[in-house]
Order: sequence, then structure tokens, then C-alpha cells
Amino acid sequence: MTTTLAPQSLAVEHLDAFKKICGEKFVLVDEESLNNYAHDETEDLHYLPDVVIKPGTTEEISAILQICNQYKIPVTPRGAGTGLSGGALPHLGGVLLSIERLNKIINIDERNLQVTTEPGVITEVLQNAVKEKGLFYPPDPSSRGSCMIGGNIAENSGGPKAVKYGVVKDYVLNLEVVLPTGEIIWTGANVLKNSTGYNLTQLMVGSEGTLGVVTKIVLKLIPHPKYDLLMLVPFQRLEKAGEAVSAIFRAGFNPSALELVEIDALLITSKMVGSSLVPVTEDTAAHLIIEVDGNNMDVLMQDMEAIAALLTEYEGGEVYFADDAQQKAELWKLRRRAAEAVKIDGYTIEEDTVVPRAELPALIRGVKELGRQYDFHAVCYGHAGDGNLHIRIKKPGTRNSQNDPAMQEALRALFALVKDLGGTISGEHGIGLVQKDFLPIVFDPVQLRLMKSIKAVFDPNNILNAGKIFD
Amino acid sequence: MTTTLAPQSLAVEHLDAFKKICGEKFVLVDEESLNNYAHDETEDLHYLPDVVIKPGTTEEISAILQICNQYKIPVTPRGAGTGLSGGALPHLGGVLLSIERLNKIINIDERNLQVTTEPGVITEVLQNAVKEKGLFYPPDPSSRGSCMIGGNIAENSGGPKAVKYGVVKDYVLNLEVVLPTGEIIWTGANVLKNSTGYNLTQLMVGSEGTLGVVTKIVLKLIPHPKYDLLMLVPFQRLEKAGEAVSAIFRAGFNPSALELVEIDALLITSKMVGSSLVPVTEDTAAHLIIEVDGNNMDVLMQDMEAIAALLTEYEGGEVYFADDAQQKAELWKLRRRAAEAVKIDGYTIEEDTVVPRAELPALIRGVKELGRQYDFHAVCYGHAGDGNLHIRIKKPGTRNSQNDPAMQEALRALFALVKDLGGTISGEHGIGLVQKDFLPIVFDPVQLRLMKSIKAVFDPNNILNAGKIFD
Repeated sequence: MTTTLAPQSLAVEHLDAFKKICGEKFVLVDEESLNNYAHDETEDLHYLPDVVIKPGTTEEISAILQICNQYKIPVTPRGAGTGLSGGALPHLGGVLLSIERLNKIINIDERNLQVTTEPGVITEVLQNAVKEKGLFYPPDPSSRGSCMIGGNIAENSGGPKAVKYGVVKDYVLNLEVVLPTGEIIWTGANVLKNSTGYNLTQLMVGSEGTLGVVTKIVLKLIPHPKYDLLMLVPFQRLEKAGEAVSAIFRAGFNPSALELVEIDALLITSKMVGSSLVPVTEDTAAHLIIEVDGNNMDVLMQDMEAIAALLTEYEGGEVYFADDAQQKAELWKLRRRAAEAVKIDGYTIEEDTVVPRAELPALIRGVKELGRQYDFHAVCYGHAGDGNLHIRIKKPGTRNSQNDPAMQEALRALFALVKDLGGTISGEHGIGLVQKDFLPIVFDPVQLRLMKSIKAVFDPNNILNAGKIFD
Repeated sequence: MTTTLAPQSLAVEHLDAFKKICGEKFVLVDEESLNNYAHDETEDLHYLPDVVIKPGTTEEISAILQICNQYKIPVTPRGAGTGLSGGALPHLGGVLLSIERLNKIINIDERNLQVTTEPGVITEVLQNAVKEKGLFYPPDPSSRGSCMIGGNIAENSGGPKAVKYGVVKDYVLNLEVVLPTGEIIWTGANVLKNSTGYNLTQLMVGSEGTLGVVTKIVLKLIPHPKYDLLMLVPFQRLEKAGEAVSAIFRAGFNPSALELVEIDALLITSKMVGSSLVPVTEDTAAHLIIEVDGNNMDVLMQDMEAIAALLTEYEGGEVYFADDAQQKAELWKLRRRAAEAVKIDGYTIEEDTVVPRAELPALIRGVKELGRQYDFHAVCYGHAGDGNLHIRIKKPGTRNSQNDPAMQEALRALFALVKDLGGTISGEHGIGLVQKDFLPIVFDPVQLRLMKSIKAVFDPNNILNAGKIFD
């Protein structure tokens, strides 16, 4: 149904047309610019686009896409380039379409607890802007200080708060989208409930920039909780930590974050950021980071104490409470910068496995067993409360998992295990470029046919982020 | 792209094939059976199918759909027939496919807080079954005592709890679906987060039985809250009640229900069910029904008192607290049976308008103004906390809004107003048969083309619930 386009250079008349649309200074073909947009955070992959375009309005994007659609020029939309599955890599050359200039928060609607924003706003900037009004936009990928809302929508991002508050898809009410044909639509309405036609909004969220370019976003907001408490609990056995996670929910608690960090990740990150906050004893295998939030401090204290008591049944060690905002910030820094730290340490691609929560111990066991079998070292961290475990693999001599057939075989075995456990390949990073070969592990030909046919409905000439998710 | 099929009788060989698949006694052509399945709860509309089939398994449904697809026989899937937009009406004749025999709860997974169920389970039966394990499935349409989970998924149902807990779409993790071609797929995985390919699960939810027949459902559950409190507050001015709704959320409260009932609806329902619970003074225009729930009774009491205090600023009258389970049940009965009562009283179709929450007063004003203009009497009730207002219209001499051009014109004006307020046609009932003519008010030709093309991807021969949502 869809065919991948071959790389091609752009004709001068196309470049001229783009300059006419956006202005000369926003159409870049110099080597430095092309190189700046040739990579994201996915291993060390590097693909040069033919041109980088930085449009400033929905209408400019529409005009650009009309030309690309007419001449079948590949277009790769890009937010901040913090993606971990290669979704923003211009692997076919052509146009790299950066949304960075669409960076305005259009309206914070305090009457309806909604915000309308452009996609190029940094996630944390948006969070802070609505927090000033007492409002809360919970989805908070680890990269929130640099990633953009538009990219978060493309990947249906999550982050630590997702366990209580849900992921991006749970906050998106309505989207303005430029289709690959250049047509502009809104996907829904600015309402909390909607049973009016097919849910184009939810189809767009997580479609990784393959169905359209999102240009305006209406998000639901909630009142910001007044208080939060944070603690860290060590475990000598990784599996026990996994069991404890599931027990917390079965006991009826609703933590606002429940993260797992394996000891190697914590040590590497502590070293990188120069932190000695967490006292590590030799026999610690992993920590759980647990946060509760709400409007009643007494209730939160009671919950924290009850959770801490429960954890002792799962061999949880001495609890470390973060005493003040600074300690909380440092603890979160250790969690949030783990991916960066282990990457620098030589770990390759970050897998984004997700399983039903209670299957976490089985997944952890399986990862370690696969390491022995395929001769790699794995480090695990992630959103344990959601069953969403990030796995980084280190194998001497392998810098890029894409070029290592043995590593690919190991990943294939990992995803087969994940599927056996009732899970799937990606919880919040997307499939992008580097995981598409694994898709047939979790989808059969009928599902893939449906998805490819939907792609063809939106993008008949297959110009927009072609070769992402599937070929 | 899609063409509506003309009604046609079924050939004997097709009936024989269906009998071979399901067994003779589950293939019904007698007049009484056909009549029983000729209507739902949408006004007094009545369309006879050619045959009623009650398959017992996914495989039987697959075999039936293969035949229908081959011979282009219209198929109307049907749950309990409680729908309010005509989605289950077999307006093209053909096969009425009842899912009533797929009525088993397959597995309540207490480890992962999930339930796997067949679609023919009554919503309240499922809620009670999981509640016995301390778990909670919140979506609770007013018809929950008779509607089926499968129908709830088709319409993306809500109900009073949606304001805190979300609608059906927020609980569906994974669906087994028989496509119109007879192919069987699962839409996703049994996980809390998923960024693996397009979101077929969310595309299926709310698609009103036009894309496939859902045969198994995996739902997320949450721990059941321990306590709830319920109160009723009268208002002399309907608009003030609407303003109060929005103020409650802006003040940071998170009620588990926030319903509005106009006085006429309450009086008619009180009379029908023989209740004198609510003391009505002559100058009452409407009531808000407000529930809070949680695990800490002190916090709930504080919240209720604070909300009550806030409401006095909006002319809220004397608060009536439901003292015990019996009073709560009676109060909820008055709300839940309002639709039935006003229908018996002569009100026609129930509109399902939804607007941004703070626009409720403007919507209410508009409805009353339209009533004066088009000479009808409207009664409003519904999920005010979500901005989802049900509107029933009474016009002497009109029993069926479908046959009254003036009423259709009035509805068109109503939906134009809803759109102007940033809202849309349906919050939780769907478009079905009776609202499809209004769809161009909120969707432009591009959106409609996308939706119809998606329909064609799933149902190339347009056999499944054809002519619903759009032609």
C-alpha cells in the first residue's frame, strides 16, 4: 500500500518556493545546519536532510506540504530531537521540517482548565506557565526540560507522573493538523467527552508524525496538587522490588510516581552529576522511588508510612525520605538523567518495554537471562508503576545496536518475551525508525495492513515521515 | 467512498448457512423476534431486520461476517438496545447480530487490576463482580442496569462518574475485534501505556459498530474508593447552577459526580418512581447533585462543606445531604431514571450536547431562547461537570423529531450554537442514525472524507452498520 521513497536531491525551484513561503533565512542548506538536524537521541544515528525548513505558521506548513506532496518530496517533521526511536531522523533526505518557531502558548483558559499551545513549546515551559495559574499538565518525560509538546504528542509520551495521571493521550482534547496534502483540519472539539465520529484526535496522538503535522494543541489541565512527598527505598533483590510495585497498587495506594532504578544506573548517574545523595550499600540491587501527592498533608504522610510498612514485606530496606525541595530535585535529577548517563557510559539503545504491571519480575528475570545467553550487560530503570521498563544494553565493541546482528537477535528475543508476558514493544518512545523491524513480533499481517491502509488514507503519496513505524 | 446498501431480503441458502454456524435456534425469523430487535431507545423508531442471529463465539461471528461480506448483506450489531442515537437500528434490514450470548466475564485479574470480558455482559453486573474484589470500573451510563459493555464501547459511554474517572475510552486497554471481512484481530496489548503503532483501540472505541464487532474486552480497573458522600443543592436560576459547576473545579475540587437536573425533569421523575425525597419549593429551577468519594472520610466531609459554602456564592439554596445508602440510592434513581420519565411524559429525542464546562450557562440560555423561537419546551439534565448536557424537547403533536421539519431546523440551530461555544454534537450517545445529518455542522468535508476512508479500510463492502454516523 505504501512504498518507501528513495532519497533524492531537491531541485532549485523547490528551494526557491520554500524560501518564498517562509523567508530565506528559514530555509537552510549549509552543512552545519544540515548536520545539526541529522540526529536525535537514538544511539549515534546520523542522516543528512537536503534542506532544513523552519516555518512560522500553520499556513506556511500547509504550503510547504502541498509542494512536497505534488513533487513527492520526503518530509520529516521534528520537534526538539530528543526522541529515542529515531522518529525525527531524516533517513530519506528531503525536507527536515522543524516546528521550533511555533513556540507560543496561545491561551491558558482558566475558566475551562484548558491550554491551547503551539507544538514547539518546551514541555517544562508549558508546565511552569500553567502552574503559575495553579494548574497542572502532568505528562513529564525525562527530557521535559528540552523536549517539545509536539514531539510528546507524536510519541504519546508518558514520564513518571503517568502512573497516577495518565499519558499525553489522556490530556489531548483537540488538535489542529496539517495533512500531508496540505489540508488543515481540527481533529475534535475542546470538550471533555466526545462521541462524535471517529476519534481522529487519538489516532493522531502517537502516530509519530506519519499522518500529519500538528500545529495547534488543546490540552486538558487539572488543579495542581498542593503537596507531594518523595522517598527512596533500596532492595537487595531486583525481583523483589518488582513484586513490591504490584503490591502497592493491590493495597489500594495511588502514588503519583513509582519508579525503579537499578543500582548500576544510579551509580553511573550519581557520578556524572556529582551527587552523593543516595547512600549505597554494597548489597543494594535497585531502588524504588515513590512519590505521593494531593491536597492534604496528613493523608500523604499516612500513605507514605503505610507504603513504607508494606515494602518491608518485600525486603525493602531503610527508607530515605527527601526532606526538602532541594533533596527532591536532586533525587529526581538522578532518575531523570539516568538515560543520558548510561548512554555516555557506553550503553546503547534504550528499549521501552511495557508489560502488565505484575509481570515486571518475570520481565526482569528474563532480561538478566537473555544477558547471560547473548553475552550483554543490561541496566533497567523506568516507570515500574506502569509496567514500563527501560532497558539499556552494553556490549563491548558495540556502539550502535543497528549494526550488530547478534544484538538484533537478542532484542528480538527480548520482545518475544515481552509479548509472551502480555506486553508490547513501546510504552512511550514509539517505534520510529529503529524498532519497525520488530513490529511483526506483536502485530499480525492484518493489523499491519489496517495501519498501513490508514497511513495511505492520510498520506496517499507517502511523503510524511515515510519508513517510520513500518515500511 | 462508501455507498449505502438498499434493503434486501436474505436468500434461503444464507439463512441455512447461518443456522449451520450458530445452530438453528439462534437464527430467528419469526415476527415476534424481528419486532423485538426492531427498536432501541431512540424515540419510537422501528426497522425490521430480515433475521436475528445470536452467535455464541468469536468464531461464529467471524463465519457470519464472511458470508455477509461475500454477499454484501447488511449487518447491524446490537448490544442491549438501550442506545439513544439509533446506532443499533437495522434500518437496512439484513442481519441483526445480537451479542447477548457473549455474556461471560472471562477473567478478573487481581494482580494487574484488569478484567477481560465478553461484550454482552451487563455493565452493572461487571461493576458488581469487580467490586466484590475491591475493584472499580467507573463508567456508569444511566442505563447501566440494562446496557451492555459492548454497547458502551461502541458509543464511548460516560455517565455521572466520568467527571472524575473518565469515560469508557479511558479504561479500554485492548479489544478482540472481528472485522467486517471476518478477520479477527486484537487492537493492542494489555498494558497501561502503549506507543506501538497506531491506536486501533481508541479508533474502535466510539466507532458505533461500524468498523468491527468487538468480541473480547480488556478493561483497566482501579481500587474501589472506600467512601462517598452525596448532596443535592437547589438553585432558583438555572444559569447560576451552571456557573456554580465551573466554580467548583476552578476552586480545585474533584467531585466524583456533578450532575444538573432541571426542575421539570425532577418533578416528572419523582412522580413516576413515587418519590417524595426531594423537597421542592416553588421557586426552584434546578438542582445540582454533587458526590465526592475517596478513602478518608474526614477529607470528604471537609470537601463537601467547602463546596457547599462555595455554592452559596452562586445563589445555591439549602443543601440536602443524603444520610444513608438508601437515600443515596433514591437520589441516584431520580437522576438515572430522568430520561425514561420525561420520555414517557411526551418529550422526544434526547440530545447529548457537550461544550467546554464554563460555557454551560451560555448553552442553557441558548436552549431556552431557541425554545421561544421554535415554540418548544426543553428540559435539561446531565453531566454538568463535563459540560455534557442532555436536552429533551417537547412539542405538542410531535412524537418523533425525525418527521418534524421544524424540529429538525431547531436542532440544527441548537448544534450551530453548540459549535459556536466550542462544543460538539455528542458527548456520550454517539451519532448513530438520527444525528448523522447534523455532522456537517461540526465537521468539514476533509474530516468527513478521512472518516469515510477509514470506514472503507475496515469495511470495503460497507456491510457493517452502514449508514450510521455518515452515509
